[in-house]
Amino acid sequence: MKQNAFYAQSGGVTAVINASACGVIETARKHGNRIGKVYAGRNGIIGALTEDMIDTSKESTRAIAGLRQTPGGAFGSARYKLRGLDENRAEYERLIDVFRAHNIGYFFYNGGGDSMDTAHKVSQIGRKLKFPVTCIGVPKTVDNDLPVTDVCPGFGSVAKYVAVSTKEAALDVASMAKTSTKVFILEVMGRHAGWIAAAAALAGTTPAEAPHIILFPEVPFNKRKFLKRVKECVSKYDYCVIVVSEGARYANGNFLADMGTTDAFGHAQLGGVAPAIASIVRDGLGYKFHYAIADYLQRSARHIASRVDVEQAYAVGKKAVEFALAGKNSVMPIIVRNSDKPYRWSIGEVGLSRVANREKMMPKRFIRGDGFGVTAACRRYLEPLIRGEDYPPYRNGVPNYTTLKSVPVAPRLTTKFVLK
Amino acid sequence: MKQNAFYAQSGGVTAVINASACGVIETARKHGNRIGKVYAGRNGIIGALTEDMIDTSKESTRAIAGLRQTPGGAFGSARYKLRGLDENRAEYERLIDVFRAHNIGYFFYNGGGDSMDTAHKVSQIGRKLKFPVTCIGVPKTVDNDLPVTDVCPGFGSVAKYVAVSTKEAALDVASMAKTSTKVFILEVMGRHAGWIAAAAALAGTTPAEAPHIILFPEVPFNKRKFLKRVKECVSKYDYCVIVVSEGARYANGNFLADMGTTDAFGHAQLGGVAPAIASIVRDGLGYKFHYAIADYLQRSARHIASRVDVEQAYAVGKKAVEFALAGKNSVMPIIVRNSDKPYRWSIGEVGLSRVANREKMMPKRFIRGDGFGVTAACRRYLEPLIRGEDYPPYRNGVPNYTTLKSVPVAPRLTTKFVLK
Repeated sequence: MKQNAFYAQSGGVTAVINASACGVIETARKHGNRIGKVYAGRNGIIGALTEDMIDTSKESTRAIAGLRQTPGGAFGSARYKLRGLDENRAEYERLIDVFRAHNIGYFFYNGGGDSMDTAHKVSQIGRKLKFPVTCIGVPKTVDNDLPVTDVCPGFGSVAKYVAVSTKEAALDVASMAKTSTKVFILEVMGRHAGWIAAAAALAGTTPAEAPHIILFPEVPFNKRKFLKRVKECVSKYDYCVIVVSEGARYANGNFLADMGTTDAFGHAQLGGVAPAIASIVRDGLGYKFHYAIADYLQRSARHIASRVDVEQAYAVGKKAVEFALAGKNSVMPIIVRNSDKPYRWSIGEVGLSRVANREKMMPKRFIRGDGFGVTAACRRYLEPLIRGEDYPPYRNGVPNYTTLKSVPVAPRLTTKFVLK
Repeated sequence: MKQNAFYAQSGGVTAVINASACGVIETARKHGNRIGKVYAGRNGIIGALTEDMIDTSKESTRAIAGLRQTPGGAFGSARYKLRGLDENRAEYERLIDVFRAHNIGYFFYNGGGDSMDTAHKVSQIGRKLKFPVTCIGVPKTVDNDLPVTDVCPGFGSVAKYVAVSTKEAALDVASMAKTSTKVFILEVMGRHAGWIAAAAALAGTTPAEAPHIILFPEVPFNKRKFLKRVKECVSKYDYCVIVVSEGARYANGNFLADMGTTDAFGHAQLGGVAPAIASIVRDGLGYKFHYAIADYLQRSARHIASRVDVEQAYAVGKKAVEFALAGKNSVMPIIVRNSDKPYRWSIGEVGLSRVANREKMMPKRFIRGDGFGVTAACRRYLEPLIRGEDYPPYRNGVPNYTTLKSVPVAPRLTTKFVLK
């Protein structure tokens, strides 16, 4: 019996998460004999809980193809984590009720470690409730902190944005350093893992080139060592470009930018490490500084997406559907690196239980001995991931991103679900 | 008698100031029968004062051509303003001494209003000291605040960057608004004139599309009206994207982001209007917010430069040399708009005294009645300026920007000049 599929986006969106959606939907359409319609959750998993789904079969071939080139989450995403089965069984049962009502036999969940945990649990509960659902994860994080996979779709594009922006800003600072700004600080994302900050290293290849200092969450911040290094750079190169991860912290674990509040997942909410670093530079050395905070710009910058990243994001979406059709369950497609030079990759698989709720830190061997830069091994790892451009089409000077019709699926349940 | 030329960059650099340098040098090379070598000031006018010049004749044709695609100031720029003739005659006389020693008969000064004032004075003092120098200004500001010219090279590219970034970040915010950030703030440059902030309007075409609120320096900030508008947007659209000019200020003239310090030109130094706005939103409405500070990224983003801007930047450089060869003096090429649709432009001229030390504000008719957006007339003005892409070449995933050899010109004066 032909069943429908449910697709949802979860957590912070990326420049290429819609490319994964495109891969899922286009591939499901190709297998119309086995998969019915693809319903997308409006605002992620919340759309399933509240029976608020979008019927993607109403979208044109062209609109779906356009997703490949459109940043953000086309159906809406959500920071909404389903708690443990014991704590909140009702939510999982509700999901199965909705899936049963709409004959949904496939669940494609596009997100990070938290979402893989949810997908895994949905697969378990479906079986228990006698409505088995094939649950396939589709990896996505800008943070590159999912384990097992060589890289996580979304990361390559933010990495490229950060490398390009660092290179460009450094040319600006260098040309003005004689009489103006000597220290430039770029704040980038990365709560626990320094992958994004590390990518800035690709802006240059020699010690004289920016970034001169990278501050990782993995390396405890040492003010004295840091100021010494800034001073050295300004003496040698006339200026100093610093790229700092939002998760940079002191040896006692306190974030440099602690705001004292937490988000829905219980993660500390951060902001303002750049001004914190700027104050340290001003008070310690008196140099004129400037800082930029890339914030959402970095993870939505589809205009400068990595071609490799776009291809991988599409490929994991496509493969997720192929896994489901091959009878696999509770797995996630991963990127496998076959060689560095030339860069060759293929798609492998991993069980969801192995990636759920686990974070991949930067390995020690990727961080330079002094803690302020990356090693050659790290550079070898990062370089292929930002390779190639994949420009979106433009109209009137701005990218012509796709807007969907987003036709809702008619609800079939009489009960309403109230979000906690 | 064939004379050499001196070219210098001044003030904040842009994504396309080197395209103007390219226009000057390539055109001078074409007229090698009348212009000798082009010397460039290292770090702008300081290079002339200290007799620290770069011999551009040592650069290959290919390197000079590469300048067209390279952001920042290839020879170094400076925030160094020559004071009035009465206050500091010595500096002007020194300039003429250096020009005389190196047989420099042409002075091409690439900068904003302050620089046009300097160029104008150099032309006057040269005549008095019996060493007449042909002084031609080459317009450059990201702020678009030079008068007479329809647009200032540098502005179109920052405008495109801001429009594209606003559009992309808005897609991100829109997809997460249900459970996460509801208010996103992008801080952009523009000390006194709101042109850059206005350009964000090109991100969308309907009231539902971002930016929902633009805060201009020209419109006194009214907290009550502002918060009311933010609340309306969140109610109607689920989220609110705000683009704020660094120069936004209260009715009493105080900047929202006053840091209490000034730069070499005596301008107030600003920073942090985005967090100021964020605090106002949090305290007044309690919405979750995020903010980005584009800072130098916006004016160095050659990777997303406007093709029209690149062409105009090159054209004013080229025309500056042609003006000099036509016997004109103390003038600046300007962009003249011949029609909006289709967009047609040509190069005109203006006397330096007419542009020196004058700022062009946004006209009242370009700002919407409620003060939070732009009018149709403004949109008609802005739209052509961000038209077209002009991608730089890439190598290993990052733009392959040109680095010059920067061979110094041997000094000929025995006296050293000490900068004050």
